[in-house]
Amino acid sequence: MDLLNNHVSIRKFQNKEISDDLLKSIIYSGTRASTTGNMQLYSVVVTKEAEMREKLAPMHFNQPVAKNAPVLLTFVADFNRFSKWCEYNNAEPGYNNFLSFTTAAIDALLVAQNVCVAAENNGLAICYLGTTTYNAKGIIELMELPKLCFPITSVALGYPDENPDLTDRIPVEGVIHNERYVDYSEVTIRELYAFKEGLESSKQFVAENKKETLAQVFTDVRYKKADNEFFSQSMLEVLKEQGFLV
Amino acid sequence: MDLLNNHVSIRKFQNKEISDDLLKSIIYSGTRASTTGNMQLYSVVVTKEAEMREKLAPMHFNQPVAKNAPVLLTFVADFNRFSKWCEYNNAEPGYNNFLSFTTAAIDALLVAQNVCVAAENNGLAICYLGTTTYNAKGIIELMELPKLCFPITSVALGYPDENPDLTDRIPVEGVIHNERYVDYSEVTIRELYAFKEGLESSKQFVAENKKETLAQVFTDVRYKKADNEFFSQSMLEVLKEQGFLV
Repeated sequence: MDLLNNHVSIRKFQNKEISDDLLKSIIYSGTRASTTGNMQLYSVVVTKEAEMREKLAPMHFNQPVAKNAPVLLTFVADFNRFSKWCEYNNAEPGYNNFLSFTTAAIDALLVAQNVCVAAENNGLAICYLGTTTYNAKGIIELMELPKLCFPITSVALGYPDENPDLTDRIPVEGVIHNERYVDYSEVTIRELYAFKEGLESSKQFVAENKKETLAQVFTDVRYKKADNEFFSQSMLEVLKEQGFLV
Repeated sequence: MDLLNNHVSIRKFQNKEISDDLLKSIIYSGTRASTTGNMQLYSVVVTKEAEMREKLAPMHFNQPVAKNAPVLLTFVADFNRFSKWCEYNNAEPGYNNFLSFTTAAIDALLVAQNVCVAAENNGLAICYLGTTTYNAKGIIELMELPKLCFPITSVALGYPDENPDLTDRIPVEGVIHNERYVDYSEVTIRELYAFKEGLESSKQFVAENKKETLAQVFTDVRYKKADNEFFSQSMLEVLKEQGFLV
């Protein structure tokens, strides 16, 4: 499966538009993904207009990729549409709860990955923006998402203007557990992460950030406890505001 | 993208094993999916042994597909492995919070969808089991998942022994919003769901369940408010037990 095995995230795009037909076609391939009970609990918000891209960029911390891509897709866990259908059909929806949020988020993410595979199969390139959940409130306001909607991930989309090497992965055996989870010993951990730690780029990363280990770059610079706790709190508040948590 | 566009869930499998090489190869394709900061916050637990399959089936409410498939894959949002790597490298992990759970769940789900695409590309067939989050506690105990691990979805895997038609979807325009979310009017909802409601299978479903509308089959029989609330509560408790919620 070369298409999947050669995937790389692209952060530099050609100055070339994506046609509406192509965009619709890859989103259609997204909708062919399985969803819970075939309820299709997702929506996709397309950001193309310069003004909206400018307003959206700060919510993704002004990452260049969020500014430069010709299209941003925001994948929304959406129980609003289905609940409206229930209401118009004399049925009382019961989806204002945490399980239903999780169910809709799962639907939206499987669709997102299908859209990305379809995009790459059509010569486009993608980059996920993990920042969507961090600033969900701002995105909800900007895109006017109603209750029972929550933006779960975003994808920057365009024609690639760079050709980076494959990124590292730990050996596949490191993520597989047969029948039961075997917890990782120090020896196993050291083996699994040796390649990543030995990369020239990793060493540079450690040096630039004046850290002792690569792991410290993650815990002290990139994904810090205090930030994670702050954004956990705000995410839970937004889930409450959107009607998914009592 | 015929492979994606022709996807159907399969619930009846041939009595034919999946080779270890093939299984490893499709999970490898899964690991090529993008993950947050390339942290690879997931694990895959493979269930093959008859004894484990028997114990796992009730956690999926004894759905025949969970019993009959030669292999079940459980996709686990896993911040345990990465946190262990941090600890062994003089770095203090800060991932025992809700944002980190969400991040790991997103990673695991993108990987799951890649595995499914790779499986189908190799002649295998799949069916997602949405029941994984319902009975997460039982699955955690059975598979001995440590803290900072949470099973987010499962996939039944095997060689197909049926050839069903494509299932219905609402028109793709119904899930796309340009720039801003346009909420659904009653007219739009009726248009989007007309095809689904008109299907012979839907009408049978309504009749069998002695309901007035198809929506009532969802709200009163398949995905009931009381069940959703019960499983929301238990999911939140398990997230707490696993160290993802204070």
